[in-house]
Amino acid sequence: MPSLLATTPEAEYAPFVLTGVLLTLIIVYLMSKLGGELSKRLDLPPVLGELVGGVIVGVSALHLIVFPEAGAAATDSLLMTTLQWLGDLDAEAVAHIFTSQSEVISVLAELGVIVLLFEIGLESDLRELGKVGYQAAIVAVVGVVAPFTLGTVGLVVFFHVPIIPAIFAGAALTATSIGITSKVLSELGHLKSTEGQIIVGAAVIDDVLGIIILAVVASLAKTGEVDLVNVVVLIVSATAFLLGSILLGKFFNQSFVAIADKLQTRGALLVPAFTFALAMACLASVIHLEAILGAFAAGLVLDETDKRKELDQQVMPIADILVPIFFVTVGAKANLGVLNPTVPENRAGLVIAAFLLVVAIVGKVVTGWTIFGKPGINRLAVGVGMIPRGEVGLVFAGIGSASGALSAPLEAAIIVMVILTTFLAPPLLQLSLKNQESITPEESDSEEGENAAVPVVK
Amino acid sequence: MPSLLATTPEAEYAPFVLTGVLLTLIIVYLMSKLGGELSKRLDLPPVLGELVGGVIVGVSALHLIVFPEAGAAATDSLLMTTLQWLGDLDAEAVAHIFTSQSEVISVLAELGVIVLLFEIGLESDLRELGKVGYQAAIVAVVGVVAPFTLGTVGLVVFFHVPIIPAIFAGAALTATSIGITSKVLSELGHLKSTEGQIIVGAAVIDDVLGIIILAVVASLAKTGEVDLVNVVVLIVSATAFLLGSILLGKFFNQSFVAIADKLQTRGALLVPAFTFALAMACLASVIHLEAILGAFAAGLVLDETDKRKELDQQVMPIADILVPIFFVTVGAKANLGVLNPTVPENRAGLVIAAFLLVVAIVGKVVTGWTIFGKPGINRLAVGVGMIPRGEVGLVFAGIGSASGALSAPLEAAIIVMVILTTFLAPPLLQLSLKNQESITPEESDSEEGENAAVPVVK
Repeated sequence: MPSLLATTPEAEYAPFVLTGVLLTLIIVYLMSKLGGELSKRLDLPPVLGELVGGVIVGVSALHLIVFPEAGAAATDSLLMTTLQWLGDLDAEAVAHIFTSQSEVISVLAELGVIVLLFEIGLESDLRELGKVGYQAAIVAVVGVVAPFTLGTVGLVVFFHVPIIPAIFAGAALTATSIGITSKVLSELGHLKSTEGQIIVGAAVIDDVLGIIILAVVASLAKTGEVDLVNVVVLIVSATAFLLGSILLGKFFNQSFVAIADKLQTRGALLVPAFTFALAMACLASVIHLEAILGAFAAGLVLDETDKRKELDQQVMPIADILVPIFFVTVGAKANLGVLNPTVPENRAGLVIAAFLLVVAIVGKVVTGWTIFGKPGINRLAVGVGMIPRGEVGLVFAGIGSASGALSAPLEAAIIVMVILTTFLAPPLLQLSLKNQESITPEESDSEEGENAAVPVVK
Repeated sequence: MPSLLATTPEAEYAPFVLTGVLLTLIIVYLMSKLGGELSKRLDLPPVLGELVGGVIVGVSALHLIVFPEAGAAATDSLLMTTLQWLGDLDAEAVAHIFTSQSEVISVLAELGVIVLLFEIGLESDLRELGKVGYQAAIVAVVGVVAPFTLGTVGLVVFFHVPIIPAIFAGAALTATSIGITSKVLSELGHLKSTEGQIIVGAAVIDDVLGIIILAVVASLAKTGEVDLVNVVVLIVSATAFLLGSILLGKFFNQSFVAIADKLQTRGALLVPAFTFALAMACLASVIHLEAILGAFAAGLVLDETDKRKELDQQVMPIADILVPIFFVTVGAKANLGVLNPTVPENRAGLVIAAFLLVVAIVGKVVTGWTIFGKPGINRLAVGVGMIPRGEVGLVFAGIGSASGALSAPLEAAIIVMVILTTFLAPPLLQLSLKNQESITPEESDSEEGENAAVPVVK
């Protein structure tokens, strides 16, 4: 009989992995609350504080939360050295525990942004989104074309960067972090305003465009030519997925409610809804789209049901627990060391970074002026809302780095651009929305959006 | 400048790990709902259905959810072979993804049982628990001594098992799965009855005793003698932890409420409470107690605050999402193959298993008759509530197996005993509680306990 309980490193180190995850989560929640509350007192969006809180415990400062993807070893992690001391572990054990713990936290962070987009989908309205669909599409396309062209041409002309790395940098400029923007909009109670819906719609379309651009650029860097079949497959599957979700929204609703009504055990509404969100996320990820797009689509579909409010209230605590993991780890992964001008190696990168930052802001802000037929709309806010590159920009930089196409200064410059747009966008967006009467389809919905900033428990 | 975005296997396989986790979670939720609902229709505790649902997708049947700790390879996992086909991956990549995905699911399951015990703590009452404290302590001690003595002596006398493995088997018989018992009690609305509080109290004490026994037995198997210092340290730290929690319950409450009241961002109550639960779980785990004991203590402490109801309502959706992962994976890990009498190797084990099962049931059921000063108490229910060995019993068997002390038939017998007590306990407990008027301290509290079986949203 084969042993049923063979000991593997996994089993032996399991208690330490759990302790490592628990310690990381405790740090994440402490920093997210400290940062968020401080930000709120300073009249800034709380999410900015969560990002800064992440920076403090991350690779830039305290080294409590670091990740092997960024080249960190277990010995770089203050948390791991503490655990090594607590558990009297050898170096090999700590390396194993570090990898496992980091993978768990990374997946929890991804589940966090999945739940965030599910919640944003639940708070968005398919019909309202449809009404601003054309505008959102134009904003997205201009927000891709403008920074890409300006960035690529500028790098080649002014900085004599070769064409392939210039295209990579240009591609990184096209991204929009839907997570950061939608979180700020939600915190400010502007998610349901016309501006908010245009930004969210454009960010979704931007995400799809970004995935297509990434596929083009990656195959260009790898083989020197574009894999057309792959690109066509991506475009077709992305379109089919988005249209399919909208159709599903019309038909699946009622059967979902019927199923949920029949269930008698705990979590009768939440568990099927959450399963549906994960299934859509999984489907999106299998057809090479981003998982968060699937979760957003699932939220849109379930928003059409009459269980919406009840579901919203039950998803909220889950978001409260999972979403901070995402924002704090984004902050923890941002290496602000590349911003230090006293390090000679950084200087070349910082000059390019300054150029990329200008392009990154201008290229997105102009999109606000492409909106037509909406007199009185806050064009600046729409443009500013598209600025944060966030994790999407880092993915571009990461793939560029892996392909070996990027020089060290250019890579650093892209990272600086991503970090600065991510951290500048929340206060800029708040500023551009301040003292404005938002154009909201329904006044009652707008109020609810503002309440979303505090837990609603009746 | 060191590359900030070096590609490691972790980064390269990350999307597949996420897809693997999402697929596993989808299967977990489908099986937990299918099993739970079917169980409910058959008038059985839903948790039994979740366990059986786990068995169906686990190592015993469909091989969708299997774990490397139990000796499974990536090629044994139907989910991994599907992912390999979807992503066109090589064997090495799949092995890496399998390990990562399993670690993530294992940690999520552990977070599930941590949240479950936090919730049970929130629903328990420190004063009520104090009132039954002596009874619970006696039930726990008898429930450890009786099965240990009967089992060890019986194995030596009737089956001529050497003394060290006999002691291991005896130790595995002492465990009580607080998770399974408290979930069934909560589902039946009996958590707050006197019987329920005695069972929960005894299970907590049993857990502490179990950890001490485990330390004794493990050092006995390793060095042939007992490491007295270690045992004394464990007893002192366990006692200090439990008494410290109770003291904390009296003083920390008010400062906790004051902090939560001052917070203005989302999750103002939930995030500090959850952080406290994780910190207590972490502390328990660092001093070599079980993490779930810390979470239970945290629940007890916060139960004393006037935020109790609000918190309870916000913890519920998190429990709905995380707890099923625990029960379904417990089922998935249970290898029912050892029950098959047509396999000749199993027969020797099955005879010992039958003996262990009788000892396991009798040794716990007798504990009900040790209760004094509570006329009219359901003694049978208390005894039956202590029967399930669950994950705690498997930990004993696993450590015994790792030490090399157990023969294959004895190891199989222990596993059979653990599986059968775990699966038999929920229906037996329901049966023994049926048609009884429970003795409840406050009638209103009991009603609330019953409502806990359905999501409470007002």
